[in-house]
Amino acid sequence: MDNQNKRKPEVSTPGKISWKPGNMLYPLPVVMVSCGREGETPNIITVAWAGTVCSDPAVVSISVRKERFSHKIIKDTGEFVINLVNKPLVRATDYCGVKSGRDVDKFKEMKLTPLPSQHVKAPGIGESPVNLECRVVDVKELGSHDMFIAKVMGVTVDERYMNDKGKFNLNASGLVTYSHGEYFELGKRLGSFGYSVKRPAKKRGPGNRGAKTSGASSGAGKKSRRTKG
Amino acid sequence: MDNQNKRKPEVSTPGKISWKPGNMLYPLPVVMVSCGREGETPNIITVAWAGTVCSDPAVVSISVRKERFSHKIIKDTGEFVINLVNKPLVRATDYCGVKSGRDVDKFKEMKLTPLPSQHVKAPGIGESPVNLECRVVDVKELGSHDMFIAKVMGVTVDERYMNDKGKFNLNASGLVTYSHGEYFELGKRLGSFGYSVKRPAKKRGPGNRGAKTSGASSGAGKKSRRTKG
Repeated sequence: MDNQNKRKPEVSTPGKISWKPGNMLYPLPVVMVSCGREGETPNIITVAWAGTVCSDPAVVSISVRKERFSHKIIKDTGEFVINLVNKPLVRATDYCGVKSGRDVDKFKEMKLTPLPSQHVKAPGIGESPVNLECRVVDVKELGSHDMFIAKVMGVTVDERYMNDKGKFNLNASGLVTYSHGEYFELGKRLGSFGYSVKRPAKKRGPGNRGAKTSGASSGAGKKSRRTKG
Repeated sequence: MDNQNKRKPEVSTPGKISWKPGNMLYPLPVVMVSCGREGETPNIITVAWAGTVCSDPAVVSISVRKERFSHKIIKDTGEFVINLVNKPLVRATDYCGVKSGRDVDKFKEMKLTPLPSQHVKAPGIGESPVNLECRVVDVKELGSHDMFIAKVMGVTVDERYMNDKGKFNLNASGLVTYSHGEYFELGKRLGSFGYSVKRPAKKRGPGNRGAKTSGASSGAGKKSRRTKG
């Protein structure tokens, strides 16, 4: 990646520069993956090569270098928990991406609380807004990284992000994204899924809510979570 | 996902709510994937179930529903181009996620420019800051979605994001992220990979650059792009 940034460019189309293959798909999620063997101190590894790979059933993937301490634990146990990262957790997230569980107890060092899981033995991280308990269904050796493909067995959310209508407002939790070596807050909201094809609402007198109200946006959002991907 | 938001909660740990499995890993990338058969109009599909799955070699994955128009094209040709999305492209991105290539010519409708590729036959999108030409190496049928695992064959970047030191500044391109049904700009920068363990620089007189300068951060960033994941 970084070597690539300084690689001698080869000009193809005017205004464009062609490079050799590299990792340039950003922004990405950055998540803390917790894992552990029974009776041993649980560990945390930070992963940016992570994502959703199937909606129904809910399947995710994380990729981990073979030499990482967590790699063997996940391979042996076939289980892990994905813990989403928001702003208060970004320092711990960075720390858990740099340090090794061979040397430090990351839960202890970062003052994180092991959260008992319901479907796997590995604990989640109590401070995380969302925990996804996962069971590995396939491992693909790809080179530097092994990809663990895993079924989501259960989801735990922090009730502080439930609104008064009983709806979970994940985007109010201060999620963090990772792009090209840097962590960012989410910034300005640009639209909800489907906004580009929404017709302006007709005037219907009082009580009419235009296409740009949050109600309409929320409707579009619903569709997105079924169809995106 | 959305049904889950209103599902009857089951309280486990105080302050936490447990749900059945669902897609709750966010924020995610949102990319326009272009594809096409020789001699036919190329198509674009917007994908959020996308990510990097291996650093070396550079391998990515995208997941596409079987019934989508692009699914068969990608399966038949074994090729596609991932086009990163920045703010000026967000409307086209949303449109390409809602509309079908069976009904519309998305390049034409969204006034996007097909960019000749060097390693695959499918064109990229000229307006995108980064194009990743990909060749499928494996297809995994997971349920609603098939995951296409693909090797990155080449990368094209827009030279307008090269800085005067010849370094590509992707995070100056206005990238967009997708979270729980909504598109967002990247917001405030929270740190570079490794910042949590950097020691404050010692005073060394004039010319000393502290750990918090962009130079030092950039160094941390380098490491991240090799080790993250």
